[in-house]
Amino acid sequence: MNTRGQRVIDCCRTLATLTEEPGRTTRTFLSPPMLEVHRQLGNWMRSFGMRITIDAAGNLRGVLAGDGPRLLIGSHLDTVPNAGAFDGILGVVIGIALAEIASHHGSRPAIEAIGFSEEEGVRLGAPFIGSRAFVGTLDAATLALAGPAIRQFGLNPENIPHAHFSPDTAAYLEFHIEQGPVLESLQLPLGIVDAIAGQSRAEIAFEGQANHAGTTPMSHRRDALAAAAQWIGLVEQVAAAHDGLVATAGRMQIEPNAANVVPGRVTVSLDVRHGCDENRQAAFRQLLTGATHIAHRRGINIHVEPRLDQPAVPMDAGLRERLAAAVESAGYPVHHMTSGAGHDAMIVAPHIPSAMLFLRSPGGISHAPEEDVLVEDVEAAITAGERFLCLTS
Amino acid sequence: MNTRGQRVIDCCRTLATLTEEPGRTTRTFLSPPMLEVHRQLGNWMRSFGMRITIDAAGNLRGVLAGDGPRLLIGSHLDTVPNAGAFDGILGVVIGIALAEIASHHGSRPAIEAIGFSEEEGVRLGAPFIGSRAFVGTLDAATLALAGPAIRQFGLNPENIPHAHFSPDTAAYLEFHIEQGPVLESLQLPLGIVDAIAGQSRAEIAFEGQANHAGTTPMSHRRDALAAAAQWIGLVEQVAAAHDGLVATAGRMQIEPNAANVVPGRVTVSLDVRHGCDENRQAAFRQLLTGATHIAHRRGINIHVEPRLDQPAVPMDAGLRERLAAAVESAGYPVHHMTSGAGHDAMIVAPHIPSAMLFLRSPGGISHAPEEDVLVEDVEAAITAGERFLCLTS
Repeated sequence: MNTRGQRVIDCCRTLATLTEEPGRTTRTFLSPPMLEVHRQLGNWMRSFGMRITIDAAGNLRGVLAGDGPRLLIGSHLDTVPNAGAFDGILGVVIGIALAEIASHHGSRPAIEAIGFSEEEGVRLGAPFIGSRAFVGTLDAATLALAGPAIRQFGLNPENIPHAHFSPDTAAYLEFHIEQGPVLESLQLPLGIVDAIAGQSRAEIAFEGQANHAGTTPMSHRRDALAAAAQWIGLVEQVAAAHDGLVATAGRMQIEPNAANVVPGRVTVSLDVRHGCDENRQAAFRQLLTGATHIAHRRGINIHVEPRLDQPAVPMDAGLRERLAAAVESAGYPVHHMTSGAGHDAMIVAPHIPSAMLFLRSPGGISHAPEEDVLVEDVEAAITAGERFLCLTS
Repeated sequence: MNTRGQRVIDCCRTLATLTEEPGRTTRTFLSPPMLEVHRQLGNWMRSFGMRITIDAAGNLRGVLAGDGPRLLIGSHLDTVPNAGAFDGILGVVIGIALAEIASHHGSRPAIEAIGFSEEEGVRLGAPFIGSRAFVGTLDAATLALAGPAIRQFGLNPENIPHAHFSPDTAAYLEFHIEQGPVLESLQLPLGIVDAIAGQSRAEIAFEGQANHAGTTPMSHRRDALAAAAQWIGLVEQVAAAHDGLVATAGRMQIEPNAANVVPGRVTVSLDVRHGCDENRQAAFRQLLTGATHIAHRRGINIHVEPRLDQPAVPMDAGLRERLAAAVESAGYPVHHMTSGAGHDAMIVAPHIPSAMLFLRSPGGISHAPEEDVLVEDVEAAITAGERFLCLTS
């Protein structure tokens, strides 16, 4: 049947046509097409009795009255440039769909559906503006940066303190596409996120000696690229040896970068992630030490500049259990996993007990027009959501 | 005493002030300062009885009458941008100095001193214009390219055929700084060039899959940079294992080149050189095959584009022996070596028996203002040149 899943997907595909760039989906923080997103989702929410507000950070919020403390469900409305149709917005649409289902039940929790205005950090280079305003951690500098866009959208940045979540909010639930290949490779529709991985970043500069590629014998070289290449092999090897660890050398600059010159200077970026901070930090240290050893053995200078040490954010243990029970009672296999990417739940979790449910990403593809989701997986997520809300009877 | 050596060095330093760019030495093909170079060197050559011509390619040529077939001595007058004071011009100045010494001897060979107008390929992107015109191998396309510069300098490109060397030219001798660290590391002033290395070039593209650095487990990656890095290790290893071989990965492009994205596509340049063509080609094939194996084992596509297969150019065996005997009788150790860089002798050798003598490069530095030469090494080269010309008696 899957009609509920198909309706969610159709809604996401329609919203993907609301864009700053004709022919592709690009919808950044409070850009003009966001007005129409608010209008369409707002109309839907109102249709089954939700009370709608747009807070001063541009978050779209709808509240459905119910029994007891409020359950928050949502994700973000903004996109990367040339995006797919599901990153973020799928979690908002599933949240509203669940609220609508709940609206037909006499016994239900109070539900707040939320569409965060900004998660990707594209427009201003600062991510999570929506969720940070919501939990009260938006710093003054980012607020100053965001001020003009907020005013331009017809909102008042001075009202940001009123964007704070309601004190009766008891839990946050975020549905999101996995954006990776794990669930697909396991042939599973859903994954329960145990933690959002912590992240270490550094910039490593190898400084050798640029030389003529024809006149400099191998034994006389201090080749910065050869040193960097050896170290990239170590990065791969160390990451493969540690369960759940990912380590990436993604950006590289070579000087002078000419076919007939031995490279004199190479900088490489390092990105290390793991659900456990100790494991991450140990691997990070091992890789930086390894870089130093490789450089010294080659008579090459090295400069290491740590750039980020962001701890892992665990999801709430009780909610994880409740989500696992919901998935199981809905008839789907329970699979626990770490999120390698950051999400709004990472910002919300320190303030409100949070849980996240991943939906399988076909091909593991995201941040691209080919981004997709299976209708039966959306149906599975909705069914698990019903169980989580105890709506079946 | 070294007064002859010092005079040559002083002359080179004076000529280095003739430049297109105030404060640094930059003198490209037939650029305005070349007029003054011709004037100063021409005056010197005339002062001891040489007959001067500027041929249609802008080569400065002076002939000293003598007994029997003509011996050609020279190198090039042009420079790279921000050059040193010795690359090329040192060989021209030593040639004139030797002709002057010869002019005082009753018994001497006919000598043509030559300053080739273009070797570096900087102004038009086409190297060896002077020597190619001299041996009659300047192609029509390059001639068309060079035409305007030749006319602007007051010469007529239609006269290029008359730039051809005289049929009584029996040998070419080129003095040149080594531009590498070998002689210095051996504490030797001079090196006899046996061959100018052949060169193979290729561009290798590794095509994997760009992916999120947080959400893509190591086992699911097709990381183009990790593949390229492994291969760069092989390049270094294969070159180090083969005597006299140099192999360089000097240029690299990474896509998308972002710290948080697994690299999807990487191109790397390969430059392989050796004095023996078979050794070079075997190593080149080994490295391309190795790249293919590495890529296939990683599920990565590979495109190999060979760009150059330039054979080695051996120097004349008889002249090499005569030069070695001259160096030895001058009292210096004989050291044979391959030139990893190209020189005018590479263009001349297929047409006129050729020999090259390298002078030690302090620090191995060239193509930079720090480029230098030792006065005692210039003296050694002049003394060896006298023996080569059989001027001592």
